[in-house]
Amino acid sequence: MGEHTNLTQPDTLASLFNPRSIAVVGASDDPAKWGNWIARNALKGAHRREVYLVNRRGGELAGHPIYPSLRDLPAPAEMVVLAIPAGAVEATIDDALAVGTRIFVAITAGFGEQGAAGQAQEARIVQKVRDAGARLLGPNCMGVSDASAELYIASGGDETGPIALVSQSGNLGIEIGLMLQREGLGFSRLVSLGNQADIGAEEVLESLIEHPETRAILLYLEGIRDGRRLVAGAQRAWEAGKPVVLIAAGVSQVAARAARSHTGALATEADAIAAACHAGGIIQVATPRQAIAVLQVMLPAARPQGPRLGIVADGGGHGVLAADLATAAGLSVPSLSSATQQAVRAHLPATASVVNPVDMAGGGEQDFGSYGRVAQVLLESGELDAVLFTGYFGGYSTESEALGDQELASAEVMANARDATGRALLMHSMHFAAGPNQYLRQREVPVYAAAEDAIEAIARAVRWQSPPVPPLPVPAAVPAVSADDYWSARSLLADAGLPVAVARLVADGEPAKSAGLRFPLVAKALGLNHKSDEGGVLLNIADEAHLARAVDSLRAQLAPPAIVIEEQAPVSEGIELIVGCRQDPAFGPLVMVGFGGIFAEILRDTAVALGPISEGDAEALIRGLRGAPLLLGARGRPILDIPAAAAIASQLSLLAASHPEIAALEVNPLLVLPDRVVALDARVMLG
Amino acid sequence: MGEHTNLTQPDTLASLFNPRSIAVVGASDDPAKWGNWIARNALKGAHRREVYLVNRRGGELAGHPIYPSLRDLPAPAEMVVLAIPAGAVEATIDDALAVGTRIFVAITAGFGEQGAAGQAQEARIVQKVRDAGARLLGPNCMGVSDASAELYIASGGDETGPIALVSQSGNLGIEIGLMLQREGLGFSRLVSLGNQADIGAEEVLESLIEHPETRAILLYLEGIRDGRRLVAGAQRAWEAGKPVVLIAAGVSQVAARAARSHTGALATEADAIAAACHAGGIIQVATPRQAIAVLQVMLPAARPQGPRLGIVADGGGHGVLAADLATAAGLSVPSLSSATQQAVRAHLPATASVVNPVDMAGGGEQDFGSYGRVAQVLLESGELDAVLFTGYFGGYSTESEALGDQELASAEVMANARDATGRALLMHSMHFAAGPNQYLRQREVPVYAAAEDAIEAIARAVRWQSPPVPPLPVPAAVPAVSADDYWSARSLLADAGLPVAVARLVADGEPAKSAGLRFPLVAKALGLNHKSDEGGVLLNIADEAHLARAVDSLRAQLAPPAIVIEEQAPVSEGIELIVGCRQDPAFGPLVMVGFGGIFAEILRDTAVALGPISEGDAEALIRGLRGAPLLLGARGRPILDIPAAAAIASQLSLLAASHPEIAALEVNPLLVLPDRVVALDARVMLG
Repeated sequence: MGEHTNLTQPDTLASLFNPRSIAVVGASDDPAKWGNWIARNALKGAHRREVYLVNRRGGELAGHPIYPSLRDLPAPAEMVVLAIPAGAVEATIDDALAVGTRIFVAITAGFGEQGAAGQAQEARIVQKVRDAGARLLGPNCMGVSDASAELYIASGGDETGPIALVSQSGNLGIEIGLMLQREGLGFSRLVSLGNQADIGAEEVLESLIEHPETRAILLYLEGIRDGRRLVAGAQRAWEAGKPVVLIAAGVSQVAARAARSHTGALATEADAIAAACHAGGIIQVATPRQAIAVLQVMLPAARPQGPRLGIVADGGGHGVLAADLATAAGLSVPSLSSATQQAVRAHLPATASVVNPVDMAGGGEQDFGSYGRVAQVLLESGELDAVLFTGYFGGYSTESEALGDQELASAEVMANARDATGRALLMHSMHFAAGPNQYLRQREVPVYAAAEDAIEAIARAVRWQSPPVPPLPVPAAVPAVSADDYWSARSLLADAGLPVAVARLVADGEPAKSAGLRFPLVAKALGLNHKSDEGGVLLNIADEAHLARAVDSLRAQLAPPAIVIEEQAPVSEGIELIVGCRQDPAFGPLVMVGFGGIFAEILRDTAVALGPISEGDAEALIRGLRGAPLLLGARGRPILDIPAAAAIASQLSLLAASHPEIAALEVNPLLVLPDRVVALDARVMLG
Repeated sequence: MGEHTNLTQPDTLASLFNPRSIAVVGASDDPAKWGNWIARNALKGAHRREVYLVNRRGGELAGHPIYPSLRDLPAPAEMVVLAIPAGAVEATIDDALAVGTRIFVAITAGFGEQGAAGQAQEARIVQKVRDAGARLLGPNCMGVSDASAELYIASGGDETGPIALVSQSGNLGIEIGLMLQREGLGFSRLVSLGNQADIGAEEVLESLIEHPETRAILLYLEGIRDGRRLVAGAQRAWEAGKPVVLIAAGVSQVAARAARSHTGALATEADAIAAACHAGGIIQVATPRQAIAVLQVMLPAARPQGPRLGIVADGGGHGVLAADLATAAGLSVPSLSSATQQAVRAHLPATASVVNPVDMAGGGEQDFGSYGRVAQVLLESGELDAVLFTGYFGGYSTESEALGDQELASAEVMANARDATGRALLMHSMHFAAGPNQYLRQREVPVYAAAEDAIEAIARAVRWQSPPVPPLPVPAAVPAVSADDYWSARSLLADAGLPVAVARLVADGEPAKSAGLRFPLVAKALGLNHKSDEGGVLLNIADEAHLARAVDSLRAQLAPPAIVIEEQAPVSEGIELIVGCRQDPAFGPLVMVGFGGIFAEILRDTAVALGPISEGDAEALIRGLRGAPLLLGARGRPILDIPAAAAIASQLSLLAASHPEIAALEVNPLLVLPDRVVALDARVMLG
């Protein structure tokens, strides 16, 4: 983490998106070759920049000469695109750097994703490029496109639109391009990252915040390098009103293995990604379809501002289904006020239902204007944040032009009402590609082929928020801890003023005495990680004789370097939590809270956040656990001291975050009592 | 429940699907009218049956005369289709019954879905129809289609195929028809049920089991009438190799309200529907898209027999995403054996990854034959139950015909390998509608526009099973219980030989004595449903004096009709379960097991099954609870007596099922101890 932080060079990224000249090395005159396709794409910008084609076999393509080498070009190229075998890449980069090339787009595969030797070669090349003040996209990527600069190296960039795609998969870029095109959208920029050996997602994301043509950003990432910087960039995009949507891939074990051989990416744990998305206001999705669905509704005119959904169906079935889906997605489908019901009823047949969902009961086909008028009433009512039409709209245009014209007129009324009210309007139609629906898309009214896509998109949009990303504390100059045994961990907590059980260390050979500790006591053998599983913890020690026997027994069985004796806490009066902190390679310090003991196993209920966290954030995290009623006095239990637990979680997170030598720190269990908390066990792992 | 059970009249349903003659009442010569559209559809079968058009205004349509009334027809019609205002329906039915009409298709709305008056009229009409030995589909339906009989009253029936749709929504029928058409599929039969006033889903389902053209059945239901019969029918379909897929709508509160005004349906609780689907081998989905996705993979040639999935991607990203999705769906993506990896590698470039997912790394476009050869190796390996291709396949056909021909040849090899091996093959392609993929559809290789649809479909298919539906016991002649107080419920259990705490009843005014019960005791005031919430339960009564005080106190505060004193069970040594039985209006006796006490609130973890259940089924239900580790000795807890708990659940379910006077019976808590169980409290509700 952090090693790339100082590399932002906006000037160089400007060359990435709008180079003054390009050389495509590996350009081919054979239409079956990849190098032919790239060259032809690059030539689309030949009217505004020099595009040189290079291939050691020479020849020509579409009237452009193919030069045998970079050394033969009439002038140096600012950007060099590499579409040549891996073995020739390094020498070609040397040649280009010698004449001042600023940016490389390395399509060529066979580097970091192919094991240790490839990684070493990749690192060496990147070092050369950086030493020369140049930059490299890829290797193992599909290129870059910028619509307004008419730069087309990557595929999928032909359809211009408001979406920037930053992707570690070229084919997904093509698929997403096709999907956007069906929704009347397209790319402002497309960056295929490949192995992210030099230029990474963080930096590209930052470059998009100020890019006027980009109104929303979609990321497909298999590996995350500087996650903290990515999150900070996403949050700046959020502040600029540009939503960031992330398809995070490779989170399962099998997929992580596949990602490793695809882009050399190292897996990031799913909970870390979720915590990062929460902190950065990033909308996390699992698939391209989910991404497109939410992007449609995140464009400013289309964005719902709250969870109150109105549903209008041509026929009842679609209304019933949509109501079930909306409920499952956590949206509300409020009954309309009687005034609004009356206003809707005025435009519909007697058999219509107007409570919400509205069932037009065939009213649309009796009078096409009723679609527009019902939309208008609902959007103007002030009772709904979004209105979803679901069913047949647009289908009449497939029957006759005259009917289609009437639908189109209604579509215009609907879109106008949306613009006038600022409330969100969405369309699900079985005739999603029909003319009236294409018109709605032009007006930035999102149209969906499936109601569930529309509803999930609304739910994601409504949840969209971006709390502040926690700043990292200054690393402490002096290590807090130098050993990983229990006594060291306990001392770390005690020195930081955190409540631990009163205890003392009994060295090997030293006689066991309570020495002022109050019985009952616990004796713990040091040097065992799962102390209780291995018989290293003896409880309920009632007096001095019992203590002596307990210590003798631990020494005889486990020969520990030392033994800790401590006052036993009233475990049955409280609930055990776990509070953990760890350094994530991509996202830095993370904090986890969850239930301990038997509940850990049953509930599997933990919450993770980017650290460090404030006491308020910690309390929200704890109260958000499914098992929170256990702490809140459910079923006549005592109300436990959540603020004290939150304070510990916050302090621990700050402690761990300011000590980079601590790879992980876990208090398990943290006993939460009605009036206080006690750390009953702790572990530290050194990095 | 059960009121329709004796109405199966296969002969009459034969008239529904293939009437010898039809009269369309409300046929219109105005193309803008619904009655015009129905008439034209009905006339498509005029070459094989008499189709009479009726409208009191007379006229003609497409060369067919329109008769002013049913009385003017040259011969009586076996089927009468009603597309007239609600007010004219009853008289028209009277006329038709007088001349021997056997079946009515009532398109007309405005009956049971419109409140009490409509319900009364609907019931009266149905009674008339039944009394005459005739039948009625609807009212408030969109009709019926049968492709092989060339009967087209409903929409969506033009594309012939293997799927029968039984739907309570006409518009959903149209949407599903369009979706099937895109997958090269279509309807064998389409039945729009409307309000199910007479003919219901159960009966139609039964008629489809023996229907040779129907290979899979899709139900869209808002209300379930005789659920037990529906489940039994689904299971017979399962035995016949015909999968039944259910879109159950109206399960949320808002949707249930909408369903009520749409088809007059009464809501069924979601857990009852899930239990019924489990018992009947019904595949439950939430949306039409999910239904179509699973139907594609359930056709016999396409059906996977196990969870081992092989993934093949053109480029790595699609492989990574599919692996994540497959893992999340519970499928396995096993590493291929080294022999199989070697065999795959032989057909791909050096940069390909062959472990699983297979990343062809551009191998497909270098040699289109590699698609077919890789498919063949994987399908023949015996290591996989299904192989999913994901990415670009078919896209080259959009670039040139020559490339398309090569893809088509590969598609043929793929489909042949599927047929030869009997393993499942699925395609996800961003070019899902391209020629080579249309060819795959013709060969019944399912093709999907989104990988998640393919993967969820496989997961649903793999889970498809149908355990036996429990037969209902003969209702007991003598009521088991006649009052709903705790003592009655406890006596019911005790009389049935179930373990309850030793107790005795202390009548009002009677002095409180332990009378042989062992201290500590519990005193419970009768006549309170939530006894402990209202202070009606006093625990830890240690001796006679304490008992006297406790009983006095209950009498003073609550004036109960009587008090139960019983031996206190060792609650801290066990875990509390809940076992409940209830009579569901649609599905009959249901059994629920779940965790009680604090865990009930935290885990919200219950399992429901159609009752009665065997001890084995009950044990499976309990062991399937998420909290089951609590019973199984987790974290050093004692192992508890699950078999005894299962025996109680089974006996209770039998008791409740054989006593129709019991609307609900709940034991909460059922204390499960290491060597036995005790019912600590019980409630009975009389029907």
